[in-house]
Amino acid sequence: MPIKNGSEYIESLRNRNLQVYLFGELVKEPVDHPMIRPSINAVAATYDIAIEDPEIGSAKSTLTGTQVNRFLHIAQSSEDLVNQNKMQRKLGQKTGTCFQRCVGMDALNSLYSTTFEIDKKYNTQYHTRLLEFIKKIQYENLVIGGTMTDVKGDRSLSPSQQEDPDMFVHIVRRDEKGVYIRGAKAHQTGCINSHWLIVMPTMRLRPEDKDYAIVGAIPVDAKGITYIYGRQSCDTRSMEDGDLDTGNSQFSGQEALIIFDNVFIPNDLIFMDGEVEFASMLVERFTCYHRRSYVCKTGLGDVLIGAAAAIAEYNGVSNASHIKDKLIEMTHLNETIFAAGIASSHQAYKTPSGNFINDDMLANVCKHNVTRFPYEIGRLAQDIAGGLMVTMPSEKDFRGAVTGPLLDKYLKGRKGVSTEDRVRILRLIENMTLGRNAVGYLTESMHGAGSPQAQRIQIARQMQLEYKKKLARRLARIPEGENTTDSTLIAESSDYFDRIFGLKKEKQNNA
Amino acid sequence: MPIKNGSEYIESLRNRNLQVYLFGELVKEPVDHPMIRPSINAVAATYDIAIEDPEIGSAKSTLTGTQVNRFLHIAQSSEDLVNQNKMQRKLGQKTGTCFQRCVGMDALNSLYSTTFEIDKKYNTQYHTRLLEFIKKIQYENLVIGGTMTDVKGDRSLSPSQQEDPDMFVHIVRRDEKGVYIRGAKAHQTGCINSHWLIVMPTMRLRPEDKDYAIVGAIPVDAKGITYIYGRQSCDTRSMEDGDLDTGNSQFSGQEALIIFDNVFIPNDLIFMDGEVEFASMLVERFTCYHRRSYVCKTGLGDVLIGAAAAIAEYNGVSNASHIKDKLIEMTHLNETIFAAGIASSHQAYKTPSGNFINDDMLANVCKHNVTRFPYEIGRLAQDIAGGLMVTMPSEKDFRGAVTGPLLDKYLKGRKGVSTEDRVRILRLIENMTLGRNAVGYLTESMHGAGSPQAQRIQIARQMQLEYKKKLARRLARIPEGENTTDSTLIAESSDYFDRIFGLKKEKQNNA
Amino acid sequence: MPIKNGSEYIESLRNRNLQVYLFGELVKEPVDHPMIRPSINAVAATYDIAIEDPEIGSAKSTLTGTQVNRFLHIAQSSEDLVNQNKMQRKLGQKTGTCFQRCVGMDALNSLYSTTFEIDKKYNTQYHTRLLEFIKKIQYENLVIGGTMTDVKGDRSLSPSQQEDPDMFVHIVRRDEKGVYIRGAKAHQTGCINSHWLIVMPTMRLRPEDKDYAIVGAIPVDAKGITYIYGRQSCDTRSMEDGDLDTGNSQFSGQEALIIFDNVFIPNDLIFMDGEVEFASMLVERFTCYHRRSYVCKTGLGDVLIGAAAAIAEYNGVSNASHIKDKLIEMTHLNETIFAAGIASSHQAYKTPSGNFINDDMLANVCKHNVTRFPYEIGRLAQDIAGGLMVTMPSEKDFRGAVTGPLLDKYLKGRKGVSTEDRVRILRLIENMTLGRNAVGYLTESMHGAGSPQAQRIQIARQMQLEYKKKLARRLARIPEGENTTDSTLIAESSDYFDRIFGLKKEKQNNA
Amino acid sequence: MPIKNGSEYIESLRNRNLQVYLFGELVKEPVDHPMIRPSINAVAATYDIAIEDPEIGSAKSTLTGTQVNRFLHIAQSSEDLVNQNKMQRKLGQKTGTCFQRCVGMDALNSLYSTTFEIDKKYNTQYHTRLLEFIKKIQYENLVIGGTMTDVKGDRSLSPSQQEDPDMFVHIVRRDEKGVYIRGAKAHQTGCINSHWLIVMPTMRLRPEDKDYAIVGAIPVDAKGITYIYGRQSCDTRSMEDGDLDTGNSQFSGQEALIIFDNVFIPNDLIFMDGEVEFASMLVERFTCYHRRSYVCKTGLGDVLIGAAAAIAEYNGVSNASHIKDKLIEMTHLNETIFAAGIASSHQAYKTPSGNFINDDMLANVCKHNVTRFPYEIGRLAQDIAGGLMVTMPSEKDFRGAVTGPLLDKYLKGRKGVSTEDRVRILRLIENMTLGRNAVGYLTESMHGAGSPQAQRIQIARQMQLEYKKKLARRLARIPEGENTTDSTLIAESSDYFDRIFGLKKEKQNNA
Repeated sequence: MPIKNGSEYIESLRNRNLQVYLFGELVKEPVDHPMIRPSINAVAATYDIAIEDPEIGSAKSTLTGTQVNRFLHIAQSSEDLVNQNKMQRKLGQKTGTCFQRCVGMDALNSLYSTTFEIDKKYNTQYHTRLLEFIKKIQYENLVIGGTMTDVKGDRSLSPSQQEDPDMFVHIVRRDEKGVYIRGAKAHQTGCINSHWLIVMPTMRLRPEDKDYAIVGAIPVDAKGITYIYGRQSCDTRSMEDGDLDTGNSQFSGQEALIIFDNVFIPNDLIFMDGEVEFASMLVERFTCYHRRSYVCKTGLGDVLIGAAAAIAEYNGVSNASHIKDKLIEMTHLNETIFAAGIASSHQAYKTPSGNFINDDMLANVCKHNVTRFPYEIGRLAQDIAGGLMVTMPSEKDFRGAVTGPLLDKYLKGRKGVSTEDRVRILRLIENMTLGRNAVGYLTESMHGAGSPQAQRIQIARQMQLEYKKKLARRLARIPEGENTTDSTLIAESSDYFDRIFGLKKEKQNNA
Repeated sequence: MPIKNGSEYIESLRNRNLQVYLFGELVKEPVDHPMIRPSINAVAATYDIAIEDPEIGSAKSTLTGTQVNRFLHIAQSSEDLVNQNKMQRKLGQKTGTCFQRCVGMDALNSLYSTTFEIDKKYNTQYHTRLLEFIKKIQYENLVIGGTMTDVKGDRSLSPSQQEDPDMFVHIVRRDEKGVYIRGAKAHQTGCINSHWLIVMPTMRLRPEDKDYAIVGAIPVDAKGITYIYGRQSCDTRSMEDGDLDTGNSQFSGQEALIIFDNVFIPNDLIFMDGEVEFASMLVERFTCYHRRSYVCKTGLGDVLIGAAAAIAEYNGVSNASHIKDKLIEMTHLNETIFAAGIASSHQAYKTPSGNFINDDMLANVCKHNVTRFPYEIGRLAQDIAGGLMVTMPSEKDFRGAVTGPLLDKYLKGRKGVSTEDRVRILRLIENMTLGRNAVGYLTESMHGAGSPQAQRIQIARQMQLEYKKKLARRLARIPEGENTTDSTLIAESSDYFDRIFGLKKEKQNNA
Repeated sequence: MPIKNGSEYIESLRNRNLQVYLFGELVKEPVDHPMIRPSINAVAATYDIAIEDPEIGSAKSTLTGTQVNRFLHIAQSSEDLVNQNKMQRKLGQKTGTCFQRCVGMDALNSLYSTTFEIDKKYNTQYHTRLLEFIKKIQYENLVIGGTMTDVKGDRSLSPSQQEDPDMFVHIVRRDEKGVYIRGAKAHQTGCINSHWLIVMPTMRLRPEDKDYAIVGAIPVDAKGITYIYGRQSCDTRSMEDGDLDTGNSQFSGQEALIIFDNVFIPNDLIFMDGEVEFASMLVERFTCYHRRSYVCKTGLGDVLIGAAAAIAEYNGVSNASHIKDKLIEMTHLNETIFAAGIASSHQAYKTPSGNFINDDMLANVCKHNVTRFPYEIGRLAQDIAGGLMVTMPSEKDFRGAVTGPLLDKYLKGRKGVSTEDRVRILRLIENMTLGRNAVGYLTESMHGAGSPQAQRIQIARQMQLEYKKKLARRLARIPEGENTTDSTLIAESSDYFDRIFGLKKEKQNNA
Repeated sequence: MPIKNGSEYIESLRNRNLQVYLFGELVKEPVDHPMIRPSINAVAATYDIAIEDPEIGSAKSTLTGTQVNRFLHIAQSSEDLVNQNKMQRKLGQKTGTCFQRCVGMDALNSLYSTTFEIDKKYNTQYHTRLLEFIKKIQYENLVIGGTMTDVKGDRSLSPSQQEDPDMFVHIVRRDEKGVYIRGAKAHQTGCINSHWLIVMPTMRLRPEDKDYAIVGAIPVDAKGITYIYGRQSCDTRSMEDGDLDTGNSQFSGQEALIIFDNVFIPNDLIFMDGEVEFASMLVERFTCYHRRSYVCKTGLGDVLIGAAAAIAEYNGVSNASHIKDKLIEMTHLNETIFAAGIASSHQAYKTPSGNFINDDMLANVCKHNVTRFPYEIGRLAQDIAGGLMVTMPSEKDFRGAVTGPLLDKYLKGRKGVSTEDRVRILRLIENMTLGRNAVGYLTESMHGAGSPQAQRIQIARQMQLEYKKKLARRLARIPEGENTTDSTLIAESSDYFDRIFGLKKEKQNNA
């Protein structure tokens, strides 16, 4: 029976007997844990949007012919990718946090084309298996967690060179029914809130790393998996009474460490096994989709801009020219991020497997701006908020018999604005710039889908300096061939400009 | 006979007997003037691209059914607008300067929909007249200059309030055949290189400004027009011997002041006459198209990045990590501009007249980044170039009997690189950051299509703070209606989010 | 008996029976409260530095002739002010937080010169009283809290215009022994850790605001005072077991709301009473000293740079060029702040009372950079730290029987680095960029001593545009007097350039 | 007979028969060349300031006991260095350009201490010789040009490894009277306007580079020297009629290439000869002084801010909040540069020779900001100026019989402002952001005294990461010695913090 909406989704998570540790203890039922629940609510919103806003939140599956949640859809066009971005922004607006479901969406899409190309080369069955798996989850309407980032150990060594072989997830045993893996995946967004995990390698592999080239689907409650919950700034406020001090009491993100100890993957859920040369293709396609998925942060930006505008109004300064100017700047930066996401999706092209992938240069440009602008937007929000945001007392003081009336008297703002409403907005700004959702809005914006330097490397690979040098030499009237690298001999590592300037069609035909 | 290519275009400009003043004197034949010619070459490139790269440089006209230069095409889809951006970048790459033809393209497209709406309201014939005019110029393949910016006088007064009524172009006389206008238009890009000028008002008008609400087409060589050529940094280097010191000897921009003194516009070339309330619609649609047209600067950015990479190579430092990092940063900024242009075009929608207009918020975001990033890209190019760019001697010294050999000996860089090639690239960087094309790459990027503050005002108009405040209040759990402006009563001045989140179709149907 | 060191200071705070509310309840003994104690430790460090580093931490009082804590010293020279900056940086380095004692130091120094000038005009005794008070606290070696920021109510109204007269602290009753005040002061740094409070008006007053022009000293445990403790990000981590998750378990800042209800000030402790026109002098001098005191944040910056360098070393990436480059950038920004503080102190001049005051323009420039650069330094620290900073589990998980060994195995970094040490540094970075001390390093850097706009207004007042326009006109060869404001008639509101260019001596002689 | 003032200085330059090439031809008399003269005027201003403003422009020489021009003075205190900065800013304000005399001042001061230390080690007579030389030039009041930057050839090779040995200036012959040198020095600021050149090595040398370790004084008109004049943006406008289009007709900078061919230096003017290990000391001390000397650019910044304020006034927009805000930002950035210079000078300390040297870290921070902020100040000036700056016609058009009246009519701004005054200010802004003095204000700010990366390297050397890591580990409670480099074993390469925290005195005593 497919899950129909957010509430059914939440129910579907109960009684799974997961091994989730938090503060050193096993969590009885994550669904009911006050510190975990807000992250579940955020995922639930991804179900509800498919109903409330079907054009954005769902799509017609070419595999099943039915309308499915867009997070489970294989992109058939540029427009499909653009719509992912729009859905991401909308959900960011609704939850003010990380709703945790993009990794799975981007993993499915990158696996779709990669398995096709493995099969083509090796005559394997990965693509067919994957199609079956996707059909099933589309039908049941499940949450997929894509798990990629290994803990890595000594970063100067490859997987098989590590002193401890478990620093990267790898196959430790095989039998006729499947394989058994061991290792750990760090920073796993929303994993506990998922139904299935797709394990994937995290980087380019070498021939000797064969056992690390494993991709497969695993139920979240599979035997041998331990989850250790990540702390977040101000996380325990969710466990205090009241809802005021959390700032955003309903929604939060979720990060955990997953430890796999002899976890089984049956053959029909294995989508790569030893084809090391395809690991980098998978990783690159995944990061290409995923760096553009950070458009979600513009939805959070919208909330933060709204909060800053609201507190300015409550403080009676919304007409000050410097306040207006800061709101404009925040908007400008936020839309600059959005634009790069949309442009990347617009410039998508068809892969040999038939699905679409967005432009990689612009995806990296999008994500790279995400590592900068939310910090500046956050700084400006704190500027507008005023110092009270970090000096005001706790909710208990606002409710206290002695302190309540004093605070009510003295922390009043503009006439007609209740002290509590003012506090609520200030706590929301704190939540997004210092507190629990600052983790998602700031630090995850920095490191998710690769740290800034990863984007710079990827931009470097595609910046086509030989092409640009040629433009410069031509205008400077330097004869071709003179003291320059012969550009006809150079295979530029990117076809960014080919695609911009309309040569993409031929390329595809040849592909 | 239609103009077929760049050379024919150049010939078409001869013998027009224009009143062009430069250095206080009448220019005999602009085509042959060494300081003017590079700007003509840049326009010629807009003809050649239609032949060399028809997919980008031309389009099938729905008016004539034939393939026409894209600069004369009325956009029929988002893709048409995206292709404008691609053509703009490509021409920027080819010329390293302003090729002067976007104003006309954007003027035609904004007039197309505005005349349609005037006719609908007033039952006038402007749209039909305009279609005839467009068909003609598409057939003859002519250059259209859009002239908008009045000299404005005292900026605190409206046109009809000015002490001198000529501070804005206006009708001074009428007869049964047409109208006569007087006034001046400043910063007129490429006007002398055009065949026709389209005169348009420059801002919102009031009922009493009726005579200023005039739009019409005028041949460039019409009686009563005087052109005064604008100076540019290092302009006279084009008049020195040799081609080295100019940096880019072939291409430059062109700006002039146009003075109209009793210039006649016949009735069938009048496209607005007195409908003051449509002036702001025309201006806003024009700036919407045009701010996104500044994507052309990414083509110039490509040249400058290429020049910086080339000089780094010549200096033997292209592997230094800080050099690579600066090239990456330049690329990142350049592509961030490009992305906003593409996104704006992608988010285009159909006007009631049937043509397409790009998204205004993203167009403003695009242009606003153009007022910042080229300066930073230029700064980084100067960083990579080294100080020699501004201390090296003139071409005459390089050719001099005494000085030539000394310079050749002492200004050598890395082995195998000729001193002259090194100098050529340095002069190109100087050209784009201090010299003649810095006017286009920097100052015009700042002020063209409206100064930074104009974009901020436009972003402010569309930033939908009420919508965003509502998002914040909902997450902060502030009950609706509590100490807030009732958002149901507020007609947000923008439908940006409506269009993002897919409600645009209905809106259009209602339009 | 004078307090000799940090431990004695801590003991001196016991048994004062303060009315401190935290989480809605009265705190029994703040000294023993785990959430409050770290802020007391930070103040204790200001005692210890006077012993460990007497040249920086103490000075010879001209009032008593003995060596006193520098925080209680009246500045006698530029060098004294420079040494304040050096002490501030050093204490920032030692505590990584706000040590809360600068407000008192800056209050004493600004009162010193202001009372002198009131007495001169009104023949009052404020200065003499203040000298007695200072001698006493210098002898007893006490902590002074300067309380300035009123809660302000409706910001568009003056104190006496407020609906509720208590929105600004004011005299509610007088008798022959002294006055009684009512009102509240917000964001009171370190107030509970002080021995005396000096109440001061917060802004320019008007004749009708006479009762608000009150300055006086009050013991922290005076009858009628209520303190409500401010929440900080992650504050309750100090109340959990262990010391790991706090990041900096020893030190923190302190902000509280103080409510005065009929609090008595005896006549000999009143330093201003009704001289409304001196309120702005006092406020301006205080902010002048205090904006430069934000040099303390460079000490915190040193800690954060050190933490970033340490985690880079632990992660084995300290030789990556982009890591080194980020550490350089952080240092550059940090030293840029420091430089402005030192320059402001260097450019100090003598007030009529004989003490020294630093340059106001440069103090504002210093503070304005403090509202920007710590955010960028923090962003770069998060970049270097990696995502683990916000996804790693709690200390209890690290100590847990099941989870401890798993975490130890999987979160290892470079060989030879213990997982715990890595976690400790990451938690310190979290502490300073999201957690408890981010309040001091970021948000207080933004709003303390006036929000950014306050500095911009003050910079505007001193930027001497008439002088600069004259420079420009002279070089442009525009004849004096031509279409310009006659600069001889303009009394520039600042003598910044006079002091730079050596005219200060004469001015002082005339003063 | 000493030179008394600017006019006498100008006369002193006549009839020297220098071999100066410009546009491939020998210049008859540089003093009378319209393109060269403005640079001479700028140097003349350094004479006049000593008379008009003796406290800033002159100092009492400890060598001669008389008042000498401060550019020739050996700094005896921090205050002397601070006063250099003030003089630099003032001259920047007066000339709006590079006045070319700091290199000599900084060369004398760095040679002063370096020769002292060479003599101490080798028992040579360099310091005594230098004292005689300084006394003489102080008495005669001459201009010293310090020539350091060699042309360098292949940057990956040391001087003696170059294919062509002349890529660095070196001794080619010796006789009993002295030595003969060959080579070339690039980017030589003000060399033709000097009386003496001091040749110095440009970088760290190795034992085999002995012949390159030569320092000596040479008269500017010595036999064997050829000067080739550097081009600047818009330089030939100085050769057109009128004074309007230059923007700043009186003042400019000067850069030339100097070629030495067998130029003789007599023994008593040799200040280093073969002591290779002192080359880096000399270079480092010189750059330490010189990077702080870039405070001069704040004087240019004052002019540009004034010009921007003036044009805003002429355009009638000086009250717009965004205009005011931009002027504040320009001021803030300008004063941030100034502060770092003053702080560096304030933190000066005594060298073993007895003169004072400023702090190196802060000098690098100062210069590094100079490579950024003038570009942003320039960008904001262009923003305020408006597009007319780059589109207005030439002076000849303004004077033309036909065009003059038209321009006067149409380019009028606010009532009461003459068109010419408006044009003059716009041309000044053009001059400083694109034109002749943009070379000094922008590109020279970038590359003079070392390119940005040179400052970053120097900041890196002094940032004392071990010290800072220790601060972090202590707060994070990581036991000393645990997985850290033992900091007691590390000799930090800098004593920056020692000097800040008051240990400098002991160090000096030990020195």
